Amino acid sequence: MRVAVLGFGTVGRGVVDIIDRCVESLEVTKIVDLPQNCSGLRMTPSFDEVIQDDSIEAVVECMGGIEPAHSFIVQALEAGKHVVTSNKAVVAQYFEEFVAAAKASGAGLAIEASVGGGIPWIASIAKLRRIDEVSSFYGILNGTTNYIIDQMNKHGADFDEVLAQAQELGYAERDPSADIDGIDVYNKALITASVAFDVACTRDIPVSGIRNLTKADLEYFEARGQSIKLLAKGVCKDGRYAVAVEPTVLDLRSVEANIPDNFNIATIEGATVGPLKFYGQGAGSLPTGNAMVQDLLDLSEGQRPHYDFSRGPEWDPTLLTSDYILRTGSATPAAAAAHYEVLHQLTPVEARARLDEALKTDPKAFLAALDQEAH
Amino acid sequence: MRVAVLGFGTVGRGVVDIIDRCVESLEVTKIVDLPQNCSGLRMTPSFDEVIQDDSIEAVVECMGGIEPAHSFIVQALEAGKHVVTSNKAVVAQYFEEFVAAAKASGAGLAIEASVGGGIPWIASIAKLRRIDEVSSFYGILNGTTNYIIDQMNKHGADFDEVLAQAQELGYAERDPSADIDGIDVYNKALITASVAFDVACTRDIPVSGIRNLTKADLEYFEARGQSIKLLAKGVCKDGRYAVAVEPTVLDLRSVEANIPDNFNIATIEGATVGPLKFYGQGAGSLPTGNAMVQDLLDLSEGQRPHYDFSRGPEWDPTLLTSDYILRTGSATPAAAAAHYEVLHQLTPVEARARLDEALKTDPKAFLAALDQEAH
Repeated sequence: MRVAVLGFGTVGRGVVDIIDRCVESLEVTKIVDLPQNCSGLRMTPSFDEVIQDDSIEAVVECMGGIEPAHSFIVQALEAGKHVVTSNKAVVAQYFEEFVAAAKASGAGLAIEASVGGGIPWIASIAKLRRIDEVSSFYGILNGTTNYIIDQMNKHGADFDEVLAQAQELGYAERDPSADIDGIDVYNKALITASVAFDVACTRDIPVSGIRNLTKADLEYFEARGQSIKLLAKGVCKDGRYAVAVEPTVLDLRSVEANIPDNFNIATIEGATVGPLKFYGQGAGSLPTGNAMVQDLLDLSEGQRPHYDFSRGPEWDPTLLTSDYILRTGSATPAAAAAHYEVLHQLTPVEARARLDEALKTDPKAFLAALDQEAH
Repeated sequence: MRVAVLGFGTVGRGVVDIIDRCVESLEVTKIVDLPQNCSGLRMTPSFDEVIQDDSIEAVVECMGGIEPAHSFIVQALEAGKHVVTSNKAVVAQYFEEFVAAAKASGAGLAIEASVGGGIPWIASIAKLRRIDEVSSFYGILNGTTNYIIDQMNKHGADFDEVLAQAQELGYAERDPSADIDGIDVYNKALITASVAFDVACTRDIPVSGIRNLTKADLEYFEARGQSIKLLAKGVCKDGRYAVAVEPTVLDLRSVEANIPDNFNIATIEGATVGPLKFYGQGAGSLPTGNAMVQDLLDLSEGQRPHYDFSRGPEWDPTLLTSDYILRTGSATPAAAAAHYEVLHQLTPVEARARLDEALKTDPKAFLAALDQEAH
């Protein structure tokens, strides 16, 4: 199968490298990037060349960003070309439109690499759904924030220090807000919920991040046998569903509390199979490239991901009601003025409102859900 | 697709239940069991009825044991019927013969449920191998022993006490040796190595179990920030491979040390995708039934697992060389006469020989490998 790759950055290079080295049944015949980056024989700045080339059956989008990724994906699908994408932002925003365009032309839309990098997460949910209903999912879906928390724990370092180090290593962006404020996980939670619960998931998912997490917070919880991770979570029950992204207090001896470095882990719970967890590299050139090449091989073997959002469940955040812990006051050990308060039985939407209220008077306030098993 | 189920015990009932309730594209038309168990309309004591029924395209073997499972599987494959089996003992022993029979007739042989119950382990290795070489695997592949160790840790209980409780709960057999001496994991390690490394894996894998593990051992290691799990492990490098089953000392903050209850977790390491971990229920009626129904759906969609053992790597146990710890003497806290000795840089074969030597004078001696990261 002949393939065009859009965007020759970290992920695009991984895809081309893997196909050139290991996969005889695929051939990258065009690589689209900005004119100043076009040097090799296969490279072109013109997406139109791809659309007009009938020998190209699949387009691999690794440009990132919303435009022109969005319009390129729609054009490719309308032209009957399969689309494989790692772009969580554009899939989260335009999933319904992409599914409709794919359905209309009969082309395949494959999005494995948009959530969890090299982890076979989307494909595993789709496979599970052939037999099972999905009752819930949860997981660590952002490697940067897991790396930051892990380093804070291991070295007793404070947030800003580790963030600066992560930026130097290339694990965190210069503007880290997509990671540390939970926006990246928000996109992945929305995509996961759509696939797992057969619903065009609402964009009103409550989200909080770990920007205000301190070394003192981690010490406070560790003394209680607990740790904190930034989790995506979703529940579906009796035709209703809820999704949230929030820091969550976990038992130190839970699997999630012990995920090291920048790894991801995600759990899906099926009615007959029980809980299944999937762990691996959630980002990076080769792991993400691997996931995209796997998608291409599935498409070339005739498999077509099937998404149907026509009869989705209703949004109901009460399904995720739990206790929360709100920390206000300076959380430095020196000041020792931090105040930890348990807020009982809030929905994640109510909890996010309580945090917003607290942030007005204390811009360093921090809120985390209490995992039921960590109480 | 019409299906016959062989054996109507725990797993067979799970398969029939899932297909009847959830899967419209499959139909169980015959169930073979002993004459005294045949009551329903679909039930028959005659396997010949299945072989002679051309409308039956696939046979689901959940009888367990070696015979007649072995000859039924061969007959079914020779008759061009797909075979789905959960029987690790028979696959471990006759994998090459089954693969040859399947190849000759064009029928599919699917073995997902033989390792890791409901965990998509074999399919994930096969998928990974489309692109990647597998450099290693390791994991907890026996739920009974994980349950025993977990209960010993959580309740400070001793081995025999927890084993008796596990037998009452149905987690352990009346004769527990297949679990606690590592035979069950041996079969699963052999199958995993064959699939991961493309080799008819040698049956001379060194195996030790946890029969002699004591509460005092666990306390000794916990005081050092360590835990013990029974691991299957395999390495493949430069045309050579090694496989072993042995208790292994792990860091308390590793993922594996925190696997609870009777869950399984297994890791595969690919050249481009890095390490992937898969966690779930390694046994049980519905999880194992789920894996078998997934295999049936894959076969009905035209997928055929492909095994080729013709150019396998050479056996070389030096690839798994590591330090070991040998405990001799009574390990009860009262006696406090236990002696822990580090044995440096042994192959698993040499280590097993050292254990056998020690067992001659001390039938309660216990040996565990030291995980490199747990030193």
